Amino acid sequence: MRSELELTPIAKGDAADGPHYLALRDQIALGIEMGKLAPGSKLPSERQFQGDSGAARGTIREALFQLEAEGLIYRRDRSGWYVSPPAVTYNPTRWSGFMTYVAEQGRTPATETLSKELVSAPPAVADIFRTAPGTPLYNIHRRRSIDGRAVLVERIIVDPTLAPGLVDRSLDGSLTQILAGDYGLTVVRNRVDMRPCALVKFAADALGVKPGTPGLLVVRTSIGADGRVVEYDQEYWRHDAIRVHVDLDVRG
Amino acid sequence: MRSELELTPIAKGDAADGPHYLALRDQIALGIEMGKLAPGSKLPSERQFQGDSGAARGTIREALFQLEAEGLIYRRDRSGWYVSPPAVTYNPTRWSGFMTYVAEQGRTPATETLSKELVSAPPAVADIFRTAPGTPLYNIHRRRSIDGRAVLVERIIVDPTLAPGLVDRSLDGSLTQILAGDYGLTVVRNRVDMRPCALVKFAADALGVKPGTPGLLVVRTSIGADGRVVEYDQEYWRHDAIRVHVDLDVRG
Repeated sequence: MRSELELTPIAKGDAADGPHYLALRDQIALGIEMGKLAPGSKLPSERQFQGDSGAARGTIREALFQLEAEGLIYRRDRSGWYVSPPAVTYNPTRWSGFMTYVAEQGRTPATETLSKELVSAPPAVADIFRTAPGTPLYNIHRRRSIDGRAVLVERIIVDPTLAPGLVDRSLDGSLTQILAGDYGLTVVRNRVDMRPCALVKFAADALGVKPGTPGLLVVRTSIGADGRVVEYDQEYWRHDAIRVHVDLDVRG
Repeated sequence: MRSELELTPIAKGDAADGPHYLALRDQIALGIEMGKLAPGSKLPSERQFQGDSGAARGTIREALFQLEAEGLIYRRDRSGWYVSPPAVTYNPTRWSGFMTYVAEQGRTPATETLSKELVSAPPAVADIFRTAPGTPLYNIHRRRSIDGRAVLVERIIVDPTLAPGLVDRSLDGSLTQILAGDYGLTVVRNRVDMRPCALVKFAADALGVKPGTPGLLVVRTSIGADGRVVEYDQEYWRHDAIRVHVDLDVRG
């Protein structure tokens, strides 16, 4: 969360309502940065903070909400505040998939298939697959986690004529590997669109957060050598779990 | 907002509490897609929706919140709901700056300097500039708009030894051009980090949205030929104004 920590001292001067909650925010952030508060560990209760800092309840909550907004801490239903695990870095200019880049960062990725079914293509989806509305398409709904914490929910659409019987297999791994290995579908082009969003109900429910919580929608259209869409994927990430990094160098 | 519109028919099946608010959401989204509701235009009042659709007030609000979460509509203080202008596309693998890529997309960019001052570098910022904490650095705070709507607020840090007197100039344009043209500071490398966030108070206030509204934090570190940091920029975008696009092709 380094870049967030860098921000604060500069942003501080801007807080109209003075340093009270930001000073407490800085104390907690420093504790996290220094490792006094380990990733995944539980924060003291708001009452404890009150006792220790002598700050008003409202000030404490404002500090906690600020840290949540920055992705440094997160809430678990009824069990209080926890230090967010470090965000994983996603580089859209690399080819590696979730299972690979998460493992490369020393974390443990996991994939859980929530549903897989044949659906009839709505018009907008039919456009993407250059097919007629109502054409049957595989619709796969998965949840992915890092070190046991759900970080994204995704819906993947695949054309059954390219991958017949796909949904009869276990999809709790790398779909790209199955499509390449079992169906010879290799991707030559990835179009990646990312937009910040508020997590809509179906995504929030699957991630166990409140609808409206900030998130990142990553839409990937993978295209094969013949120009056909191999995989169309919509990932809804919780906002504190992903960091997108691109390194652009004029010297190549 | 196409990719959002694509999503809905698929997501629909997931809404635990049935199609009521999603059906209304689809009607409104279709009206926007078909151009019946033009970008920037005001939506009917919640009372009008109630009259037209016969839906309960709660259902109507849920539909509107869903559309807001998707970035299709947004609220203006006390004046109701409006259709969001199309998001601008930012491609982090290209070199062009805000003033250029916004204009290239047929939109009108504008930059407003909110403050420019000399500050003493906090430790984390000093690290970035490989200088000692407390070193004086220029801190520039700007707000940028597209077609008259504020879309991002940014804080830029520049080393005064590289650009003496920078803050005495008008910075209501392309800073990169000033640094290159007037100071001969050309950038050979851009490190771009993006993370979804909830807009913290100072950013939300500057953009006229509620703190906690989803946003995107784009942090850009621009490095010169000599390896020194030319410009360190933190942009807070409102979530419905930016779409990040990367096109990755194995055939180069």
